[in-house]
Amino acid sequence: MSGALFPRFEPPSRLLMAPGPSMVNQRVLDAMRRPVIGHMDPETNRMLDEINAMLRDVFRTSNELTFPVSGTGTAGMECALENVLEPGDVALVLISGAFAERMAEIAARCRAEVVAVTAGRGWGEPVSAEQVEHALALHPNAKAVCAVHAETSTGLRQPLEDIGALCRDRGPLFVVDAVASLGGIELETDGWGIDVCYSGSQKCLSAPPSLAPITFSERAVRARTERVERPRSFYFDVLPIAKYMGSERRYHHTAPISSLYALHEALRIVLEEGMEARWKRHQEIGAEMLAALEERGFRPFPPEGYRCPQVVCVELPEGMSDQPARGRLLGEFGIEVAGGLGELAGKVWRVGLMGESCDRENVKTLLTAMDQVLP
Amino acid sequence: MSGALFPRFEPPSRLLMAPGPSMVNQRVLDAMRRPVIGHMDPETNRMLDEINAMLRDVFRTSNELTFPVSGTGTAGMECALENVLEPGDVALVLISGAFAERMAEIAARCRAEVVAVTAGRGWGEPVSAEQVEHALALHPNAKAVCAVHAETSTGLRQPLEDIGALCRDRGPLFVVDAVASLGGIELETDGWGIDVCYSGSQKCLSAPPSLAPITFSERAVRARTERVERPRSFYFDVLPIAKYMGSERRYHHTAPISSLYALHEALRIVLEEGMEARWKRHQEIGAEMLAALEERGFRPFPPEGYRCPQVVCVELPEGMSDQPARGRLLGEFGIEVAGGLGELAGKVWRVGLMGESCDRENVKTLLTAMDQVLP
Repeated sequence: MSGALFPRFEPPSRLLMAPGPSMVNQRVLDAMRRPVIGHMDPETNRMLDEINAMLRDVFRTSNELTFPVSGTGTAGMECALENVLEPGDVALVLISGAFAERMAEIAARCRAEVVAVTAGRGWGEPVSAEQVEHALALHPNAKAVCAVHAETSTGLRQPLEDIGALCRDRGPLFVVDAVASLGGIELETDGWGIDVCYSGSQKCLSAPPSLAPITFSERAVRARTERVERPRSFYFDVLPIAKYMGSERRYHHTAPISSLYALHEALRIVLEEGMEARWKRHQEIGAEMLAALEERGFRPFPPEGYRCPQVVCVELPEGMSDQPARGRLLGEFGIEVAGGLGELAGKVWRVGLMGESCDRENVKTLLTAMDQVLP
Repeated sequence: MSGALFPRFEPPSRLLMAPGPSMVNQRVLDAMRRPVIGHMDPETNRMLDEINAMLRDVFRTSNELTFPVSGTGTAGMECALENVLEPGDVALVLISGAFAERMAEIAARCRAEVVAVTAGRGWGEPVSAEQVEHALALHPNAKAVCAVHAETSTGLRQPLEDIGALCRDRGPLFVVDAVASLGGIELETDGWGIDVCYSGSQKCLSAPPSLAPITFSERAVRARTERVERPRSFYFDVLPIAKYMGSERRYHHTAPISSLYALHEALRIVLEEGMEARWKRHQEIGAEMLAALEERGFRPFPPEGYRCPQVVCVELPEGMSDQPARGRLLGEFGIEVAGGLGELAGKVWRVGLMGESCDRENVKTLLTAMDQVLP
């Protein structure tokens, strides 16, 4: 087929209620449309400084090295692990779902020795601080403990505070995947002793996908600086990136300016609402969504006390099959909800209530449609 | 400073005449503003198929594995080299400027043995096919020959066709950086025997920065498939990416949908104009720009016959200093031209005439401003 013949692409109208991407505020879409300026423009530098300052507020950190990686969430994961793990390092990875497994895979590709720490039934179960303590006793020289805060694949919320304290006490760096949590549920980078924390722009921050906010503690920066061998990646190497982001303004790569416009505006919206108010909104509306799903015969997948309000992961009612209903929601109502990943395919639904998507009207719209589609 | 206090970011009005990013057509900016849809949406799949088909037309290739990497040009470079180079492989790198040196650095980070092939004075000088033949005789098992087609740092056009033929004859893969050339000057991926070719969205394609179009020949895909050790990067590993881009549609990462809207529209504009017409426009307007600069005492940096029309790199007239004039162009006239990188800092200017920026009106505007600013 010849490209010249394709018509203009018009995206269909969608209500995004999968766990990312989430709905994007019109203010943020409007920002994307602004004219492009150069990556070395003084105004770009000023905007980057503002974005990084706002990200510090959102991450609840004073880390100097805080910036958006020029890639999607997985790029953030790779940037985090590539910089701190050297070949032969031991990395403990708390396995709670597909994205924790991805952390383990990327750590292994960094030639680290990966030690999986898994709770009872595996996916969907939180790992306790005692388990981590036990694993650290077996691997006292572990370089890093890696955990996913909010597992997009299972809806599990992994408690982090006690594990952070352990890491401070025993020495390993604490690397946290906050792709699905930042801006949606409480996260305290400094307060919980997290050394590297990364996220994605398209989840609870409600910007389009393409950036991965990340922050490195001084300890984490030191781990990069003191490496024997440079990281394999130049694109994700935080040393030259820090020179671009810092006062030196030394060229590293061409920052994706339009995506940065969008993130700048999305962060303004987040901070206008306020972090605590935002957490409360997600908590309340997520609980309402789950209650409504339980009324319809769905059962929450993660155990009580460890459920994410922004990723409601539920097992399907007895006898219900995944695809016809989910296909009808998308095809007839334009509503996207997600099925299960990996071993959960066909068994669960994942309803995302993130950022702009986390709204009572959206819950009502989804439930009305579901009641027409479900048997 | 608290993020909540920042006002909305309004980019200043700029005429972009540095070698990237280039001006973006309003149709493309409008595309960025369209509502976000999901990365697994059937309509996203259709759009990706169309983008990849258009990219094949622009790259002049029939390679099945042709897609936009979710990152900027350097991400494309890393994706190219990470997949084909294994630790211990020999990579010949034709050194012609800063981006060729970056290829050498990334190849070295892949733990390849890098052999630099450099012409007479180094930066700004093309490498001849005879030199490559000589290097291949010394390194008959070389895995790859790496070259930059259009050096953004020097304005050099490196001829590729004879080197491609050599690679086909002797066996190594031919990896070409077309970041600054694709869509601006003639490039024939299949016709010239190129195995891996990558570019950036923000140069002659005139989309915003954030994507790196790339294409892999069957030989290059085989080099990835037959690797002993997986690439260090998961984000840039073309095997799982091919499963997302291909009919399997298996999730790999969240594609940056708004940037894809923009690239789709930018490629439509490229193909509406037609490749040959586009090359001709760049050739003619670039020559006019150079002639006007020579009249004003600037001297072309690369030798005749090897000058890029879309990156006009000129040495400053005797006694002229870089910064005051360039600063006034930006500050008083809103026009961005670039200075020199690395060893050329303070010595050259680089005027970009790429895609939408390559326009006679823009040349006139720049010259009028220069005539007020130059001594």
